[in-house]
Amino acid sequence: MSRIDGRTPEQLRPVTIERGWSKHAEGSVLISFGDTRVFCTASVTEGVPRWRKGSGEGWVTAEYSMLPRSTNTRGDRESVRGKIGGRTHEISRLIGRSLRAVIDYKALGENTIVLDCDVLQADGGTRTAAITGAYVALADAIAWAQTKKIIKAGRKPLTGTVSAISVGIVDGTPLLDLCYEEDVRADTDMNVVCTGDGRFVEVQGTAEAEPFDRKELNVLLDLATAGCDNLTALQLEALARTLGE
Amino acid sequence: MSRIDGRTPEQLRPVTIERGWSKHAEGSVLISFGDTRVFCTASVTEGVPRWRKGSGEGWVTAEYSMLPRSTNTRGDRESVRGKIGGRTHEISRLIGRSLRAVIDYKALGENTIVLDCDVLQADGGTRTAAITGAYVALADAIAWAQTKKIIKAGRKPLTGTVSAISVGIVDGTPLLDLCYEEDVRADTDMNVVCTGDGRFVEVQGTAEAEPFDRKELNVLLDLATAGCDNLTALQLEALARTLGE
Amino acid sequence: MSRIDGRTPEQLRPVTIERGWSKHAEGSVLISFGDTRVFCTASVTEGVPRWRKGSGEGWVTAEYSMLPRSTNTRGDRESVRGKIGGRTHEISRLIGRSLRAVIDYKALGENTIVLDCDVLQADGGTRTAAITGAYVALADAIAWAQTKKIIKAGRKPLTGTVSAISVGIVDGTPLLDLCYEEDVRADTDMNVVCTGDGRFVEVQGTAEAEPFDRKELNVLLDLATAGCDNLTALQLEALARTLGE
Amino acid sequence: MSRIDGRTPEQLRPVTIERGWSKHAEGSVLISFGDTRVFCTASVTEGVPRWRKGSGEGWVTAEYSMLPRSTNTRGDRESVRGKIGGRTHEISRLIGRSLRAVIDYKALGENTIVLDCDVLQADGGTRTAAITGAYVALADAIAWAQTKKIIKAGRKPLTGTVSAISVGIVDGTPLLDLCYEEDVRADTDMNVVCTGDGRFVEVQGTAEAEPFDRKELNVLLDLATAGCDNLTALQLEALARTLGE
Amino acid sequence: MSRIDGRTPEQLRPVTIERGWSKHAEGSVLISFGDTRVFCTASVTEGVPRWRKGSGEGWVTAEYSMLPRSTNTRGDRESVRGKIGGRTHEISRLIGRSLRAVIDYKALGENTIVLDCDVLQADGGTRTAAITGAYVALADAIAWAQTKKIIKAGRKPLTGTVSAISVGIVDGTPLLDLCYEEDVRADTDMNVVCTGDGRFVEVQGTAEAEPFDRKELNVLLDLATAGCDNLTALQLEALARTLGE
Amino acid sequence: MSRIDGRTPEQLRPVTIERGWSKHAEGSVLISFGDTRVFCTASVTEGVPRWRKGSGEGWVTAEYSMLPRSTNTRGDRESVRGKIGGRTHEISRLIGRSLRAVIDYKALGENTIVLDCDVLQADGGTRTAAITGAYVALADAIAWAQTKKIIKAGRKPLTGTVSAISVGIVDGTPLLDLCYEEDVRADTDMNVVCTGDGRFVEVQGTAEAEPFDRKELNVLLDLATAGCDNLTALQLEALARTLGE
Repeated sequence: MSRIDGRTPEQLRPVTIERGWSKHAEGSVLISFGDTRVFCTASVTEGVPRWRKGSGEGWVTAEYSMLPRSTNTRGDRESVRGKIGGRTHEISRLIGRSLRAVIDYKALGENTIVLDCDVLQADGGTRTAAITGAYVALADAIAWAQTKKIIKAGRKPLTGTVSAISVGIVDGTPLLDLCYEEDVRADTDMNVVCTGDGRFVEVQGTAEAEPFDRKELNVLLDLATAGCDNLTALQLEALARTLGE
Repeated sequence: MSRIDGRTPEQLRPVTIERGWSKHAEGSVLISFGDTRVFCTASVTEGVPRWRKGSGEGWVTAEYSMLPRSTNTRGDRESVRGKIGGRTHEISRLIGRSLRAVIDYKALGENTIVLDCDVLQADGGTRTAAITGAYVALADAIAWAQTKKIIKAGRKPLTGTVSAISVGIVDGTPLLDLCYEEDVRADTDMNVVCTGDGRFVEVQGTAEAEPFDRKELNVLLDLATAGCDNLTALQLEALARTLGE
Repeated sequence: MSRIDGRTPEQLRPVTIERGWSKHAEGSVLISFGDTRVFCTASVTEGVPRWRKGSGEGWVTAEYSMLPRSTNTRGDRESVRGKIGGRTHEISRLIGRSLRAVIDYKALGENTIVLDCDVLQADGGTRTAAITGAYVALADAIAWAQTKKIIKAGRKPLTGTVSAISVGIVDGTPLLDLCYEEDVRADTDMNVVCTGDGRFVEVQGTAEAEPFDRKELNVLLDLATAGCDNLTALQLEALARTLGE
Repeated sequence: MSRIDGRTPEQLRPVTIERGWSKHAEGSVLISFGDTRVFCTASVTEGVPRWRKGSGEGWVTAEYSMLPRSTNTRGDRESVRGKIGGRTHEISRLIGRSLRAVIDYKALGENTIVLDCDVLQADGGTRTAAITGAYVALADAIAWAQTKKIIKAGRKPLTGTVSAISVGIVDGTPLLDLCYEEDVRADTDMNVVCTGDGRFVEVQGTAEAEPFDRKELNVLLDLATAGCDNLTALQLEALARTLGE
Repeated sequence: MSRIDGRTPEQLRPVTIERGWSKHAEGSVLISFGDTRVFCTASVTEGVPRWRKGSGEGWVTAEYSMLPRSTNTRGDRESVRGKIGGRTHEISRLIGRSLRAVIDYKALGENTIVLDCDVLQADGGTRTAAITGAYVALADAIAWAQTKKIIKAGRKPLTGTVSAISVGIVDGTPLLDLCYEEDVRADTDMNVVCTGDGRFVEVQGTAEAEPFDRKELNVLLDLATAGCDNLTALQLEALARTLGE
Repeated sequence: MSRIDGRTPEQLRPVTIERGWSKHAEGSVLISFGDTRVFCTASVTEGVPRWRKGSGEGWVTAEYSMLPRSTNTRGDRESVRGKIGGRTHEISRLIGRSLRAVIDYKALGENTIVLDCDVLQADGGTRTAAITGAYVALADAIAWAQTKKIIKAGRKPLTGTVSAISVGIVDGTPLLDLCYEEDVRADTDMNVVCTGDGRFVEVQGTAEAEPFDRKELNVLLDLATAGCDNLTALQLEALARTLGE
């Protein structure tokens, strides 16, 4: 079976990671997974939320949002509706947890980093692109904070790398990195967040139509692990470039 | 290692399922997983949300909430704060998706069933107790609607059963059905929703501290699958009793 | 004239008061007036709201809410609507005022007790059941705080007992403790809150249809005073039992 | 004992009722009870809320609000806070119920009248001034609707008159029409809404400090009934004047 | 061409400025521009918002609102809708900026003055009447604060006077101080805020239909400047009267 | 005097206009004025708001928003705060009015076009960049709707072009197109919206510190008119390019 866009089942869409896309943010990345385009900024502030004061430990959190016309039909702004929808909440929390999995709070010290992930264009996989891009912005923000001595010399707040990818079963075939059209038709949809060493940070599998069995789950996890390996390489490659190139 | 409450690692807490706990709701269940106590009601209304009108298909949705003093320290009411928190949203959506996995919308016809899951007392596993109890309330509501001919004769909107359980790794040991104290100390926390035939509806695993590897994931899934088998039996047993006993 | 449920005009519905219904709250009561069932918890926290700090005096407040399916047709959750309705506000305030009428703020010291009254099932008289049950939860919470030395030795924050009952005129007959069906048909509806010594804390009479005259008012007050006497006895009886029985 | 402003215990403050204070509203009144000044408008619209459509019956409702600097220290605007407080809700509902007590819905036909009562200056008794003034605005609005044939010829939607007054026990003395300073010091505070024939629409008595007994209640009701008699006379006198004088 | 109300194009409507209209506020004015009637109060509080603390400088801000029936058809209350509309925000900000233009923050010291401008009756030009009246209330509040030594002796927080007027082009004719009917028909609508010495604080011109050219702009500015001169004279005249006359 | 970035007083910052930046929106533009970068999308929907139905006329409206880290320090999201701030409201309304000035509603037919202007990076002049870019997105959306026959053949909904620029007086010198640092230091700040034929749609001048006189106003208007002429040329140039180049 060939896919809508001609990819093989285990192939990622073209991924681009542009660093330094904002002159204000301490870390910023424009990431694309095919036509999905997410703008990720990392903002460093000294101090932590009240419940963490005096602990000597830092905090990392995230906010996800879609621009109203990032999708095929325009959606209402959550600011206009006056409340944040469940899906937005859910994804913001997922991104925050995923990045905290590779943070050493003690090494970060009492500083807070907020990751803002705004979807400029959506074509499936916005949350996985957001996590993957936000990691790079986070790494840049931490490097900045080290340069500015906001993080003490010799401390390494990042304990590893983290990336994420979607997998799903479409017409009986397990596929990596679903675009929107595939996502809509998927029987099972799974988002997997991995560390660079191949372990899991989050596994979220949902049967959209038919429940899935253990064998299908295993095939999907294999696909996702391999996909995250590729994303890890792309993240490291992006971070190896000099900022501004 | 023995657990806080003396259970073995693969043992459920005592589960009770009381049907008919409300005189108003079409289905109602007071379910407890140990000290966790959730009141689930199923409300049937004819008609469906606007976006589904004319489709001939029904809808099932859920709302989860915790009473302010269901926890050890009192939490603010979301009605008083004027907004629903991310966790509440996330769990409400999970319950709704889980139950819809065993619904045949066509057989339901253009009717809506709302499951309200209100946590009266929390001690870990509120979302899994909610799903497990809500299924029983849903089954009763559907039976009621069949009796009232709201659902057409011969139609079976329920395609199976669904239950849910939490599993986690605490001090290196994989455990089933975590109570609050265990949950707080868990390195990995997973909620698994299964159908009665042992397939997965949802798998949500989160590394709270250390990422987890494939082997740990497999052990947790084994535990959860067995736990859900037991819950399925308890659900069927409860539904086999005459209402009012 | 005989009533819907066979009671005499001056008869209460069966009243049950179960203490210790929550393992978390300092005081907790499941109270029922017939089919009306309200879960009342009392939460003690040290400290008082900002406007009362440094006064040496405590504070008691209440929040009332109905579960969405506590009524015959499901109501929207106020948390989902994003605002609290006028009726909820009004009853929360009434419960708070009623309980404060028997509190000696000085003896309570700078501690706050919040009463949460959540209606699990409604069949008329939810506010009066809430006040009557909340008093018992409050008494238990104060006893707990005395044991824990949060309230200083020898101090008695409770200056008396308080209970509440509804009365109304239905088809020309004054009735005690209206169930929902009677309430709907009442010309005049009155809620009366009394202390154990028979004095009034609140008298709220409303002409639903015809205005009422002084003579009718007097008959209703007689009925209510006698009803509260009975409730006081039931409260004291409940509090005389050892917790856990 | 002489009162702060030299009145006898059973004396009203100077009451003024200016009709036609708005060129837009169908009925409008600026009423003052001493320094308490409330602007009441009655707005007539054809049609009724959805739940009443097709009933052939009309509807009357009210909204009460205080200008931010109507009190001694400036209060936040409820529009800025984004929610309506409990007190505002409670009083709006009281005003609405009070006026509906003298409305024949059938005679009104499917029309809605909204009473807006905005407190320009507060000095105690704002809700009673609002009810008393709103009645006059309502009467003018109904007369206007009769002229415009919005209300059918020969129909009389008003079945009587309604007015309201506060009473209370201050330092042991029962007083009529409490100003703010008296209100603050009152042990018992009662608002009484009467029809012109001396019957009760609402009786709301609250023990602010000590509970009150039946005898005190009777004295307060006597005071209030006499006070409302005087207000009824002032309302009729105001309505007897030609509009614009 | 003669105007609806018989005025010449460059003529103001009758303007009245009543000071001391509230017994609570430190400054208060009931201003009318023809049938437009705005109640302005100035509230002085010691201290400033957090972001200004320790600066030694004061702050002046404003809130504008329309009573629901100040217009021809009743509008919903913003407190009931739970949010403030764009127009209200825009005008509140305009009033605040206009008054701050004549304030010396240092001389004011760390005090805050809030201007509340509530439209009791609207007939065009509510924002300009609000600014013009609020200035007078502000002047009275500052005088009060000087008397109370809240503002230090010898300090003059007011650096000038400020007033505002609307101008517009209706059927090709430039007009001063548009009433509602003219405003609706205007091709261009401009609000101009001037200091007493004839300089501009705000110029806000909007093409409602046809864009306007430089020549038209100049004619409108001439009209507005002359109109503000007249308003300045009326403000000074009002302030010259002894309060209470 | 030379400016921060070396420009002459009457010089625009480098302006770039990239069309077709979204695959979903009917019109989309990424516009930059120096470091200010705004993403503008135009969304076409058939039908109009309720109040306009049956008129045969269309509607154009706009929503403006800043990403949280578009500025030097991160701002809270308005969706998280649950309300839209006054500045956002004000600018959204300005953009909508500006574009409607060049729309023939009849020619548009009963269709609605929503312009979303999201600031990705802010460095002064975000509202003027938004208007200038939104015009181009609007033109593309209208061309699309003409191709799709949503707008009837031969109809020209655009009656002209519109662009906007800021001007201000900094240290006594009138400057065109202020960057953030200049804007902060400006005594007077003015935003001018012009049509392509040099007439005014909006003139909004504000004295930030000293009031400004007529002569200064004239100099600023000259600067702005010339700046808009240049922007008009850039808009036409951008629209002359084939989409996708």
